[in-house]
Amino acid sequence: MTSSSAPGFAGLWAALEPVGRSSSGGYRRFAWSATDRVLREWFADECAKRGLDYVEDRAGNQWAWWGDPDAAPGQGVVTGSHLDSVPDGGPFDGPLGVISALAAVDALRRVGFQPAKPIGVVCFADEEGARFGVACSGSRLVAGSLSPERALALRDVDGLSMAEALTAAGRDLTGFGPDPAAVQRVGHFVELHVEQGRALDHIGASVAVGTDIWPHGRWRIDFPGEANHAGTTALRDRRDAMLGYADTVLAARATAQEHDCLATIGRVSVRPGAVNAIPSSVTGWLDVRGSDPTAVRRTVLDITAHAGSFGATVVEESWTDDTRFDTSLVRRMQRALGNVPLLSTGAGHDAGVLAAAGVSSAMLFVRNPSGVSHSPAERAELADCLAGVEALTTVLADLAGPPG
Amino acid sequence: MTSSSAPGFAGLWAALEPVGRSSSGGYRRFAWSATDRVLREWFADECAKRGLDYVEDRAGNQWAWWGDPDAAPGQGVVTGSHLDSVPDGGPFDGPLGVISALAAVDALRRVGFQPAKPIGVVCFADEEGARFGVACSGSRLVAGSLSPERALALRDVDGLSMAEALTAAGRDLTGFGPDPAAVQRVGHFVELHVEQGRALDHIGASVAVGTDIWPHGRWRIDFPGEANHAGTTALRDRRDAMLGYADTVLAARATAQEHDCLATIGRVSVRPGAVNAIPSSVTGWLDVRGSDPTAVRRTVLDITAHAGSFGATVVEESWTDDTRFDTSLVRRMQRALGNVPLLSTGAGHDAGVLAAAGVSSAMLFVRNPSGVSHSPAERAELADCLAGVEALTTVLADLAGPPG
Repeated sequence: MTSSSAPGFAGLWAALEPVGRSSSGGYRRFAWSATDRVLREWFADECAKRGLDYVEDRAGNQWAWWGDPDAAPGQGVVTGSHLDSVPDGGPFDGPLGVISALAAVDALRRVGFQPAKPIGVVCFADEEGARFGVACSGSRLVAGSLSPERALALRDVDGLSMAEALTAAGRDLTGFGPDPAAVQRVGHFVELHVEQGRALDHIGASVAVGTDIWPHGRWRIDFPGEANHAGTTALRDRRDAMLGYADTVLAARATAQEHDCLATIGRVSVRPGAVNAIPSSVTGWLDVRGSDPTAVRRTVLDITAHAGSFGATVVEESWTDDTRFDTSLVRRMQRALGNVPLLSTGAGHDAGVLAAAGVSSAMLFVRNPSGVSHSPAERAELADCLAGVEALTTVLADLAGPPG
Repeated sequence: MTSSSAPGFAGLWAALEPVGRSSSGGYRRFAWSATDRVLREWFADECAKRGLDYVEDRAGNQWAWWGDPDAAPGQGVVTGSHLDSVPDGGPFDGPLGVISALAAVDALRRVGFQPAKPIGVVCFADEEGARFGVACSGSRLVAGSLSPERALALRDVDGLSMAEALTAAGRDLTGFGPDPAAVQRVGHFVELHVEQGRALDHIGASVAVGTDIWPHGRWRIDFPGEANHAGTTALRDRRDAMLGYADTVLAARATAQEHDCLATIGRVSVRPGAVNAIPSSVTGWLDVRGSDPTAVRRTVLDITAHAGSFGATVVEESWTDDTRFDTSLVRRMQRALGNVPLLSTGAGHDAGVLAAAGVSSAMLFVRNPSGVSHSPAERAELADCLAGVEALTTVLADLAGPPG
């Protein structure tokens, strides 16, 4: 199948490649923008070319069916991902899963596969949350874990609300929100995604089955200080909020290492923020994740204690428990794929949202030799992408094929 | 004189107190704003009440003369400061020098003093540079060390140029810029200012004579990294620009301590600046000052080497050599005032600009018990303010009185 998949995959890839690419070489494909409209129309066209039954749910996610999902309620075997991007994102995060889904359907058709269960291809809206600040808003909305009132009131950097953006994109907001019927059609959901780290590179494998999404959270840490003149205030008379912040950045790294977790401070805000003013306050945002919820909590407690020694206060802004994908689905995928590694991930995905909503879900990851993601440097070799399509095709054939 | 000065000083103070005060309790008195207009009109009115000859120079600075400065070229004895503020600044930085100048004139008049040389009171425009980003623009413009072309093109946060702001404030821009005749009238300039540190508090003195402004500069430090996903990138695979930044913040403090200088990092910018993204670059701005130019340079070299070990590049954005006030003027003020301490300062002032332009200049500092400045917490006791007026009155009487 590898060689016969190559032209189809390459053609799909080539069509998407120029859409929303910025001068940096990265992508700016934001939800409900003009670029997003091009991507959505491309997806609908590709589904139409394949004679799939195209339908949009009440949250604007795009579904296309091979076979009638309502004739076999709760039996649909669905795959897909998203087409939107972070600012200056790479080409693989999202699109690889959508293109691989279409290529897998093509591969099944080429060999005359007759699905015993309906097969669905899905493209979720607004997975990255780059425009309105809430990740996976399309899947959360359809699954009912994000209220339409809250979503529609979110605003982008230009002050435009999601409601206004949807209206500008020509969408009718009547009935916008959860769509239990759309979710109930899904018997199994398998999302293929480029890996966003280097685990597969380290072990030398092309593809892995995703087993779970790590517990993760965000904490805001406010360091107090006293505004004063940088040119006239003796060091001994200072209360410089930047010093506690800097010390805590280094402590966060060391603590994460100690507990085998990940800790990152990627955003900081300083007041008054003038070159000649001693900071009166510094706020840092801490992101902590790891495979073991207890270790993650321990890491946060240790960093909190460290920051507290500088008088800082720590507020939990979000916390998501670990999401285990369906163990029996994972085992079945392993059996179908033979000797394939298992992988945990620290990133959120639509598959995690569906799993949390009770849908039997799992993921496939494709090796990323640089480990870089959310950057123009994100990368995957063609051979690994084709191995991903092959694995997905095998999984769909197994799940949607005749029993036994 | 102390007791008789109090009512006059308090009255002047009370009139200014509500102008431009924000809800924080701090002041927002920005150059050429509506608030600035109220302050300028107040100053012109107070000069008129005293029968002083009011004149504005080509850069918009306000001067008022007791006696004819053109009858005795280069003999004027001038005092004053500024009325504008930084955002949420305190009430003393600037206004104390202007109010004390008027109160000193009143005190001289009360005792029937007859000036042998013309006495001038000046209010410089836009000392803080809070609106257009260049400090001491009024004194630099009149002295010719800032070109009118550059100044008029500066823009505030709303995108308004200084030219547009001046026009909106009703000023005619014909001939705007250097005004050698205005500068040449000044034989001596003595600026009284609230101290912006705690040196006088530490030694228990009300007033000091300023001797020099420390050498100071600003450096931009760019730390490189690699953008990546905070949830999926193993610690060992990261190039996190924040770590080098944090380490250098702590090293800057330790290095400054070692070389007896001041080092501050009060502004930082992070890219991409997302909570879940490893920073691909962090830029910090370093401010270094100290009494010894060699020690300041040594401090910057050491911090540069430290930052360099993280791959950072360091660019000098500004450098000002130390400004020595006129030694013979300082000695004469010391003689007139008796046992008064001498003080260096790390802050820039209009007196420094005039000194650099060749005008015989010096300063008087009034104790600030908190040492806090550029903040609503800035403070000076009334008794110390009155001691400042008394010292300034004595200095003016000495400089403008009959010889011998």
